[in-house]
Amino acid sequence: MDIVDQIRLFIEPRSIALIGVTRRTGDGHNVLENLLSDGYNGKVYPVNPGADTILGVKVCRSISDLPPGIDLALISTPRDQVPQHARECIARGIKALIIVAQGMADVGGEGAALQQELVRVAREGGARVLGPNTFGVANAFLNLNTAFVRFDLYRQSIGAISQTGMFFGGTHRRRLIGKAIDLGNACDIDFADALQYYAADPQVKVIAVYMEDVKDGRKFMKVAREVALQKPIIAIKGGRTPVGGRLTQSHTGSVAGRAEIYDAAFKQCGVIRAADMDELDDLILSFWYLPLPRGRRVAVQTNTMGAGVMATDALSSQGLDMAELAPATKERIARIVPRWLPVRNPVDIGPSKFVEPDGRKIFTESVEALLNDPGVDSVLFILPSRPPPGSDPIGSPDLAQDLVRRYPSKPLVCWVHSADVGEVAAREFMEAENMVAYPTVDRAARALARLANYAAWKQEMQAGGA
Amino acid sequence: MDIVDQIRLFIEPRSIALIGVTRRTGDGHNVLENLLSDGYNGKVYPVNPGADTILGVKVCRSISDLPPGIDLALISTPRDQVPQHARECIARGIKALIIVAQGMADVGGEGAALQQELVRVAREGGARVLGPNTFGVANAFLNLNTAFVRFDLYRQSIGAISQTGMFFGGTHRRRLIGKAIDLGNACDIDFADALQYYAADPQVKVIAVYMEDVKDGRKFMKVAREVALQKPIIAIKGGRTPVGGRLTQSHTGSVAGRAEIYDAAFKQCGVIRAADMDELDDLILSFWYLPLPRGRRVAVQTNTMGAGVMATDALSSQGLDMAELAPATKERIARIVPRWLPVRNPVDIGPSKFVEPDGRKIFTESVEALLNDPGVDSVLFILPSRPPPGSDPIGSPDLAQDLVRRYPSKPLVCWVHSADVGEVAAREFMEAENMVAYPTVDRAARALARLANYAAWKQEMQAGGA
Repeated sequence: MDIVDQIRLFIEPRSIALIGVTRRTGDGHNVLENLLSDGYNGKVYPVNPGADTILGVKVCRSISDLPPGIDLALISTPRDQVPQHARECIARGIKALIIVAQGMADVGGEGAALQQELVRVAREGGARVLGPNTFGVANAFLNLNTAFVRFDLYRQSIGAISQTGMFFGGTHRRRLIGKAIDLGNACDIDFADALQYYAADPQVKVIAVYMEDVKDGRKFMKVAREVALQKPIIAIKGGRTPVGGRLTQSHTGSVAGRAEIYDAAFKQCGVIRAADMDELDDLILSFWYLPLPRGRRVAVQTNTMGAGVMATDALSSQGLDMAELAPATKERIARIVPRWLPVRNPVDIGPSKFVEPDGRKIFTESVEALLNDPGVDSVLFILPSRPPPGSDPIGSPDLAQDLVRRYPSKPLVCWVHSADVGEVAAREFMEAENMVAYPTVDRAARALARLANYAAWKQEMQAGGA
Repeated sequence: MDIVDQIRLFIEPRSIALIGVTRRTGDGHNVLENLLSDGYNGKVYPVNPGADTILGVKVCRSISDLPPGIDLALISTPRDQVPQHARECIARGIKALIIVAQGMADVGGEGAALQQELVRVAREGGARVLGPNTFGVANAFLNLNTAFVRFDLYRQSIGAISQTGMFFGGTHRRRLIGKAIDLGNACDIDFADALQYYAADPQVKVIAVYMEDVKDGRKFMKVAREVALQKPIIAIKGGRTPVGGRLTQSHTGSVAGRAEIYDAAFKQCGVIRAADMDELDDLILSFWYLPLPRGRRVAVQTNTMGAGVMATDALSSQGLDMAELAPATKERIARIVPRWLPVRNPVDIGPSKFVEPDGRKIFTESVEALLNDPGVDSVLFILPSRPPPGSDPIGSPDLAQDLVRRYPSKPLVCWVHSADVGEVAAREFMEAENMVAYPTVDRAARALARLANYAAWKQEMQAGGA
């Protein structure tokens, strides 16, 4: 069985044995409750020596009573019992084990010894282990979540690999996770293994990673570079400061390496590093929805020059260029701005209402002129969250999406300023598909820069390989 | 009349003349509409040669027909007519003029000459000018907004000074603006003038600034340093990159100085620089609600060590220290965590449910232990946006606010992770008063660092002055 098939047992299981399911609430009990209420479409076999049914599901008295051919066992028992239960599962022919227990290598000492024993048992029995200290896996496409915490699952083309359960809840915008693998202490299955699974998975387009440490750096780099050429890998590095790094040892038993080494390795492999959770969010959405730009030249449409100045600062700080507009572009835009206003980039359509009463026309004419300009690689438009009274709204998600359909090779992104993100106009843009609205222009610029950098890295790699 | 009284005519006017009010929709017409619908509690005198009433308000046929004693004139006429209308207003005894027109120094040439003429007219007549190229002022405490765009006004203790109308809509979280002054091209009234007004204003606790350039740097620095000792000044600098800086010239006719010079000047004067709109938002809220910490030692309570690692990284990157917990603090916390879990900072209360079923007690006991520790200057607690099923929620805004009341001298802040910010639990924390919840831990750390830096600057200045 190759690694992709091995990981498939974890994340696409047809049947799951649950070891350590209490009769009332508790971790294993909650997992069963979640699997049932989510409508997991495989079979579930809870094991408990003292019950006939739990939550209406027939219970096996012992692991040895389980039917043969089960894909995955989730072991939720206290740490001391884990090696013995792993042994029994392997004896029943189960090749994939999720170990939930904390208090192993993450606390060291006796816990670390227990983890070593677990690894030895698995190796000898030819089984693979996810964890310990893990939520396990989530797969929205099978209504599967092995965490004892409830999460809403959405069938989105995003696969997460993490050393924490935090990402099962998705990122803080739109819960952007369709599949998740929590490596926990990563005693066996590691980042490279999970990356290979996602690379082969047609349901996943973007890979999101939260990494504290990688034990086999050489293996990771080889695999990451191959996978990054196929799908964008966006990574947050935990333990990037010396004091944070010392802490990871007591979180997942990892010794987090120096941040600069990871930064250099990520860069070489085409892994896109996100500085924080906001950026993770932005990049997942950007790489999911937007085409890769051909270059670094950005054109901006704004309704106020204050915002235009901020956009120019933000793009320039990120190493992007303000596009020089072609004469034909300027002529087209000149028709919808007052004569006293010079046409340049950023295009200020604030005073356009004095010339053209139709806000939809102002928006479409100027944004289309920019998209149509061969010297423009990406377009950013800036709108207020509310139009002035008596004025037409300038732009709308449907107008923008129509332009996306007609100019599919250039990223079109948006900043809705002065906006409570809860406001209707802002929400509509934030939730529109196939385009991305950012809450600040600095975040818009950062995301456009990451797209351009990744595109350049891919080109370079492909040129080098040719 | 001193400068504070002069600015008071603009932002606390008892009566306003509106020059250039069209009968139907249009800029001046919209201003009148807004003043009426907002319920501005002063008198309004629209001027229009061809109407008796507009929107039910009696109209003066000409400026010379206006009654005497009007505090403020808002001139919304095309740029060529501005100097003449300014002259007529001054002749009627009006000492405060807001000039809305764009196309003056912001476009250069003929426009710049018109602006010079305006300044000369005002100087000769002993009047002050706000603008041109401005929305004017907003003052929620008087239901006053002179912009032609509608905004919701909230009576919050925050005063803004900007060179753009963008901030009239408030920042993107909670529209955090109670008063706003848009300097526009700043041909006369400048940042130092507006700062002096806010310094003297008991309704304003925090001052927010969007600055493209300062013409009289020496005056600004002298005033800013005095004001910063009384109230925090949070500033965003527009035109901070060379390419953005060139653009400001065509926005407000300003030549934005080099970013490093502004950074150094801000630092020397105790002005707190916000890097972007997210940070502006965070800092306004933080300086409004939180006490200044005595030092840089932060204690963290978390429900998952993954988040604890991220918090440690974030705090450490911002130059904050992880507090060493006192033995008494550790003993108190040890009662609510499993024996196998070492008690340290960050405090991991994730496994506490195995020891203490009452989530409220877990929260209060551990957070209070941290607040009570003399070696802790600030406390950050981290919660998921949803508790595990069958578990009590850990923490709530009312519990946190009770702790704020009992420990008023230490900042208590929160990160609700894995959260759609629209989710109930997250919203409740985000909207709670007297504490601040940040959407990412990096933003929490950045804000705590700015509080600590400002506190240190004040101490140093006060020690130096003693």
